[in-house]
Parts: sequence; C-alpha cells; structure tokens
Amino acid sequence: MAWANIGVVGMAVMGSNLARNLASREGNTVAVYNRSPERTRALVAEHPEAGFVASETVDDFVASLARPRTAIIMVQAGRGTDAVIAQLAERFEPGDIIVDGGNANFADTIRRERELRAKGLDFVGAGISGGEEGALNGPSIMPGGSAEAYRTLGPILASIAAVAEGEPCVTHVGTDGAGHFVKMVHNGIEYADMQLIAEPYDLLRRIGGHDVAAIADVFATWNDGDLESYLIEITAEVLRQTDARTGQPLVDVIVDQAGSKGTGVWTVQNAVGLGVPVSGIGEAVFARAVSSKPAQRAAVQQAITGRPQVQPTYDGFEDDVRAALYASKVVAYAQGFDTIIAGAREYGWDIDLGAVARIWRGGCIIRARFLNRIVEAYQRDPELATLLADEYFADAVASGEQAWRRIVSAAALSGVPVPGFASALAYFDSLSSERLPAALIQGQRDFFGAHTYRRTDAGGTFHTLWSGDRTEIATEPSTH
Amino acid sequence: MAWANIGVVGMAVMGSNLARNLASREGNTVAVYNRSPERTRALVAEHPEAGFVASETVDDFVASLARPRTAIIMVQAGRGTDAVIAQLAERFEPGDIIVDGGNANFADTIRRERELRAKGLDFVGAGISGGEEGALNGPSIMPGGSAEAYRTLGPILASIAAVAEGEPCVTHVGTDGAGHFVKMVHNGIEYADMQLIAEPYDLLRRIGGHDVAAIADVFATWNDGDLESYLIEITAEVLRQTDARTGQPLVDVIVDQAGSKGTGVWTVQNAVGLGVPVSGIGEAVFARAVSSKPAQRAAVQQAITGRPQVQPTYDGFEDDVRAALYASKVVAYAQGFDTIIAGAREYGWDIDLGAVARIWRGGCIIRARFLNRIVEAYQRDPELATLLADEYFADAVASGEQAWRRIVSAAALSGVPVPGFASALAYFDSLSSERLPAALIQGQRDFFGAHTYRRTDAGGTFHTLWSGDRTEIATEPSTH
Repeated sequence: MAWANIGVVGMAVMGSNLARNLASREGNTVAVYNRSPERTRALVAEHPEAGFVASETVDDFVASLARPRTAIIMVQAGRGTDAVIAQLAERFEPGDIIVDGGNANFADTIRRERELRAKGLDFVGAGISGGEEGALNGPSIMPGGSAEAYRTLGPILASIAAVAEGEPCVTHVGTDGAGHFVKMVHNGIEYADMQLIAEPYDLLRRIGGHDVAAIADVFATWNDGDLESYLIEITAEVLRQTDARTGQPLVDVIVDQAGSKGTGVWTVQNAVGLGVPVSGIGEAVFARAVSSKPAQRAAVQQAITGRPQVQPTYDGFEDDVRAALYASKVVAYAQGFDTIIAGAREYGWDIDLGAVARIWRGGCIIRARFLNRIVEAYQRDPELATLLADEYFADAVASGEQAWRRIVSAAALSGVPVPGFASALAYFDSLSSERLPAALIQGQRDFFGAHTYRRTDAGGTFHTLWSGDRTEIATEPSTH
Repeated sequence: MAWANIGVVGMAVMGSNLARNLASREGNTVAVYNRSPERTRALVAEHPEAGFVASETVDDFVASLARPRTAIIMVQAGRGTDAVIAQLAERFEPGDIIVDGGNANFADTIRRERELRAKGLDFVGAGISGGEEGALNGPSIMPGGSAEAYRTLGPILASIAAVAEGEPCVTHVGTDGAGHFVKMVHNGIEYADMQLIAEPYDLLRRIGGHDVAAIADVFATWNDGDLESYLIEITAEVLRQTDARTGQPLVDVIVDQAGSKGTGVWTVQNAVGLGVPVSGIGEAVFARAVSSKPAQRAAVQQAITGRPQVQPTYDGFEDDVRAALYASKVVAYAQGFDTIIAGAREYGWDIDLGAVARIWRGGCIIRARFLNRIVEAYQRDPELATLLADEYFADAVASGEQAWRRIVSAAALSGVPVPGFASALAYFDSLSSERLPAALIQGQRDFFGAHTYRRTDAGGTFHTLWSGDRTEIATEPSTH
C-alpha cells in the first residue's frame, strides 16, 4: 500500500502548490492530506497530471507513505501545527521525518524538535520563502533539524527548490530551530528592503518632482544595475499599474497604512535580546506601525501649522538617491547577518553565512544580484567582523557616501521621512567615529547608579565617588 | 512579639536604604531580614537610630510582623525573587501583602500575582526608581496589585516617596503587572533621554568646536530653562569632572562602550509586540549596542578611507541643538506614553497617564520640569491621541522645527551620528505627511503575497491579479 516517498499535509494554497511542485519532479510520488477532504478532492481533480496519492484520513495518509516516512506540514503556524504534529507523531515510527514548512517561531521549532527527538522521530523546521509562486515553481528553502534527516530530505528539497547560478536554493542551515531562525531574519531583511524602496519613491516624488510613471522608469533602470532584485522589479510593476476605476496610478488609491504579519516584529525582538543593533529592520517595522495609526496622523496634521519648504532638486538627484539606497541596504544586510551570527552563538548552531546568502539568491522575496557580493565577501573572509568592513562593500559605501549624506540632509530639511536611510547613516557613522558619546553615558550611569566604568588607560573598573569627595576608586582589579 | 508594621527582605544597598527610609518616618517600625545575617547585623549596628527589628531566620522575620503582614522584597530579579516569595507565601496568611520592589519583568509579576491570589495573598509588584539615593531619601514608586492592598500599602509608600510640587511620587498604577510595566517604560525613556543628551554633547564638541568645560556650561545653562532635569544637571557635573591621573576631562578617559541592564531591551521588545513604533527608545538601545562592538568599530575604521569634512558651526548653533533635543524628547515621551496606553489596553489596566507623569516628577532618574507639561497635556485631554498633538507640545516642536532640521542635516553631512534626533524627526515627519509611501508597500505585498489592500475611495479589501490580467477583484466586501 505504501508507495509515496513524500507527503504534504495542508492543502491551502502554499501546501497544494508545494505538493504540485514535488509531484512535477522525476521520481517523486506525493501523498496529500487535508483536514477537510473537499480541498484535497478539488486539487486531485484539477491536477490529474500530478498523480497524487490522496487520503481522507490521517491513518490512510500515513499508510500511503513509504519508509522512512517523510511528511511536510503546511498549515497555519501555532496550534494548528502542534495538532498535526501530534497526529503524525502518534503514527510515525523511529526514523520517520516530520517537516514543518510553515512560518513557525524558531523557539517553537526548538521545543518541537526536542519533544519529537525524545520519541525517536526526526523533526525538521524548514523556512520556505517565495510565497505561492515560489512554492509552485521553486522556493528558497531553509531547513534546520538533524544532519541525518537532511540526508533523506536534502535531495527531495533540492529537487523542488529554486535554482540560482546553477545551484539549488537549499542548504542544511543548522540543527533544530536554525532554519526558522534564518527564515525569520530573511523576513526581517525583507521589511528593511521594502522600506528602503519606499523612501526613494517618496524622495523622487516629493523632492525630485517625478510623476509616478517616471519613478517606475527609474526603478526599472535601477533593476538593470547592481540593485537588480525581485523587489525593485515588482516596484516598477506596481508603480506602472493604472487604476481602472479612476485612471490614477494604483499606488495613489491604495490606503497608505502598511500591514505586517509578525516576523519583522520577531526579528527585532530577538535581535535586541541578543544585543544586535538592528536599526534597519527596526525602523522598517516602526515605519509600518506609524503608518497604521490614522488617528495619530490626523491629530498631528491638525495640530501643525505648516510643512517645511521642500528643497530644490538638482542634477544627479536620482543618482544620489540610488547611492543612498545601496549604502542603506548594505547596512540592513550587515545587521541581518549579525543577527544570524548572534543567534548561532546563542543557540549553538554552526551556520555557513555564505551558504545562507547563496540560497537567498533565488526563489525568495529578497533575491537579488547583491547577494552574490555577500557570498563573495564571506568567501574572502568567513570571520568577517561586519559586511561593512568587506573590501567590496566598504568601497561601494565610500563611493556613495557623500550622496547618502546629501540625501539624508535634503530629506530632513524638506520634511520627507527617511527613517531607513537616516538610521543606516547614523549606524555607519557610529561604527566609523573614533570616539562615541557612549563615554558620557557611562559617566552618567556611574553617577546615578554606581554602574562603574572602564578607563582607556588602565584595566579593571572604576567608580567616582560622585556624592562624596569625587575621587576615583577601583571597583574591580585589572584582569591583565 | 509582632510589632513591625512593615518588613524588608534583602539588605543589599537598595534594600537597606529603603529600610532606613521607612524607619525614618513617623509611625513605622521596620523588620529586616537578609539571607546571610552578616549584612543585617552590620546595618543594625551602623544605624541604631532606625530601631530595626532584625531577624536571622524567615520564621522570626514573619513572626515580627504585625497583621496584616506587609513585606517588601528587595532582592535580585528572577529566581531570587521567586525563592523569597515562596518562603514568605508558606508562612503568610490571607490578607497579608507581599511587595516585590525589584526590577521584575511585568510578565513575571502578572504570573506571581495570579499564583498568590489563588492562595489568598496580596501580591504587589512595585517599580521603584531613583537608585540608591532615591531609595534612601525618596524614590518614585509605581505599585501595581489590587486596590485593597494599596489601601494598606499606599500610606506607607507615600510616607517614603519623593515629593514633587507637594505631592508624593506614588500612585496606584493599576492591577497586577501595571506597576512594573510602567517602570519598564520609565527605564526605556531613561535610555532615550540619555541618548538625546549624548548627541548634543557630540554635536557641540565635533561641530560646535566646544571643549568639554564649555559643553558643561551649556548643559548647566540649559538646566535653568525648560530642559531642567536631573539628567541634564548630572551631565554638567560629569563633564566638569577632571581626571586626577591625567588632568584630562574624565569623559575622555572613560571607555566609550555603553552598558545596559535589560529594561531598555524589554521596552523595545514589548512595544514592537504591541505595535507601537518606539524608535526613540529603540535607537537609544541600538546606539549602546553599537558602541559595545569594538571589533566591528575597529574593522570599519580600518576599512574606510576617510571621514567627511565637518560642517562649519554658526551663530545660534547651540540654540539649534537645544531645540533639536527638546523636540526629540517630546517624540520619545510621546512614544513612551503610547507604549503605556497599548500595554494598558492589552493587559486590561486602567492607567491614569497624568498620574504617571506626576509621580515621575520626583525621585526618579527622568525627573524633569518637562513632566509638568505632560501632566497638563493629559489634564487638557485625557484621550489625547499623541503628546505631539497637544497644543503646548505642538507649539514647542513647531518653534524648534527648523532648527531640528538644520541639526539633523548638519550631522548627516558632518558624519556625527544622531540616531535619536534623526529617527525622532523621521517619526514626526511620518505623522505630519499627508500621504506615506506605505501605499507602495501595500502594493508590493499584494503583488508578491496577495496580502490585499484597501482603497481610499471604497470600503472592503482588494487584490490586483498581478500574474493574471491585472484587473482588480474585491476580496472582502465593504463593511459599510
């Protein structure tokens, strides 16, 4: 009875597309199951070419899988996932593999992996990026879990993944929750990327004086250069869309309140917890949140007496905006990779950063030519302190640096909000400044809380007797 | 045997100072206990005037308390607190009150309150701000817990709290974790305040060309105006301090890597989870984190080819910096109060925002004349959409707005990092802009993920068939 080498649970659009993708590859026989059987029936009827092995009960589904059984769960993250895992775990046997392909929180994945390992089952949390179309035609896949499970699962995932520069966009990211952690950071970077596209659009419009069609052309042109990426490409498409009802550009009839689905928030929460200054993703998440407060926006617009005069545009303004975008993007990715490094250290994962950049080059939302430069940077130095210190990125930022400064300055004077560009520049300037005013903050902390400070010219820690005679005492001996 | 009306557990510096404060007030008899009795003995020996009732066992301590027993725990947050709570809870009886005066996470406080309520005990999580000196001479106190417990506890806390404008700096913030939540936000705002002082210092030095002594004078002058506050005052003190070893300003021999103790991180994590754009606190936390990455700073400084030329200073530069600080401070507080509003909604607390501003006017690190303006703003309109929409603050920001823009512009051109000023300005400009590029983000999200969008001219939600014929379909009917 058991003849399917892979099964998929959950026949919503992501699950059915992934199942069709699997079925289209040589050598795969795909078992499918959904809680309500109507969906399964519809899928099987619409896609007879797929040769699905359809089941209407969990028992039949499990019976239809060849050993070691391998099933990919594609249901809503959270309780739904736990329920399906429990159903499969009851019926699976040691050596079988349960894959969660949903957008799980990596902490849940760590917990689930531990619980299932105790039962002898392999659990793999796999981030799958690329949306509906990626699921059907080739996503970027970020699996965690054990190396043993990846031996069985790897070839199957490689067969359906996107291909970039001849390589499938899948790698064994690390153990247990590593895959979902990296997927979370991917999504966080996606937030930053989108904010860093929204700002140039706004600048070209409000300072550059371009109409929407002209801005679409600018993005299309940028997509021919080193900014080439899926998000730049679709930005031109969105901006070219005319609304049929009004004849206006579609972007002008869309309500300007950006939604979010949680992974950007998770990235910020985890990054700050790990001590990573993740301002690029943070400001992107904040910007969406501000946009979604119509009452506050209306109240402030009623309270203000006017808006500043917009600075005049100038020859080369477009190029300046482009340079600001590129430099800010380097910062956002540097912070994103720092988050992965910090997560790997905290949770004991051995993550190949170059491999992460490699599998993001195809199938996923942030796919971009830019990622090749990151692959090369980590080839040059796998221990790179920050992407900003890589020779290629340092040069790229240096060549655009003055333009970046001009744009942040013009935006501040003109009243165009550029939280992404401005925070990225502040981050770069913080790393670049020989001395930071953090020394004053340490002085304040010592004053009000006796938190002590270190000296530049001696080891150990010190405290000034601020409410005494203001002499300095050593509070901890030098460890030298 | 039982004659103490209040007890304190934990005789580290915060606990012993709080105990001394309590003992100094008419009518209080204070029981004290510490796990290692040496500390208790030393305190009693040093302060015979306090008339402490000292115990060396938990049993004796509990026996020394008059009913309803009331004990304040001042031990390290986390497991230490749970252990002491368990010891007291075993011995306390219904109606007795356990107060946690440590820096607990409000989520722990919610849990502890629920557990102890089930045993008939009153548990009060109370944020206490003001450090060692505040504990001794009058802190700002933010108690949560039940209204009944506050009836017993309130007068005792009022007797030891700081007094500002004739009122004790304590109020019943709300039930269970409300006090520790508000204390967390207080600390987050403290991070923002300190960053917003560090940036002017850096600007006055690097662009203004002032030496450290001159900057101390500038802060002292500012402290005579509407920026009057504890943090501005001690900044002048810190900057005036000369290092005895080198003869240099102390700030120049302090290592410029700022530490942090977690509550700033908690504020950011909770605020983003609640959908509050908390960029002022976020950038302050990020700035400390960047400063504490010496390897990254060194690598970038080695990779860059030079630093931008610093913009010339000009007449009125100091005043411009001052205006930028004031406006950015309004933004940081607006976001902080938004976090309290969002927390109150999420956790079911009825928090009087004006009362929160009132109890922060004395005893705590962020005490400032500025808080009177917030008290007044919430008197004018308790339902204020944002502090930035209050007439006083709107005027204050408007009068400094051009200066703020000039400073952010000059900093960007000069390479001086001002993440606090710049993000605050971007936030203000986001709220002030009639249209935001969030509309483009919604278009992108609809393109790659079918997330749908709303239209400005019709109810319901819509989706463009991007990979089809690009017509628009209604995905959800108008609710109108």
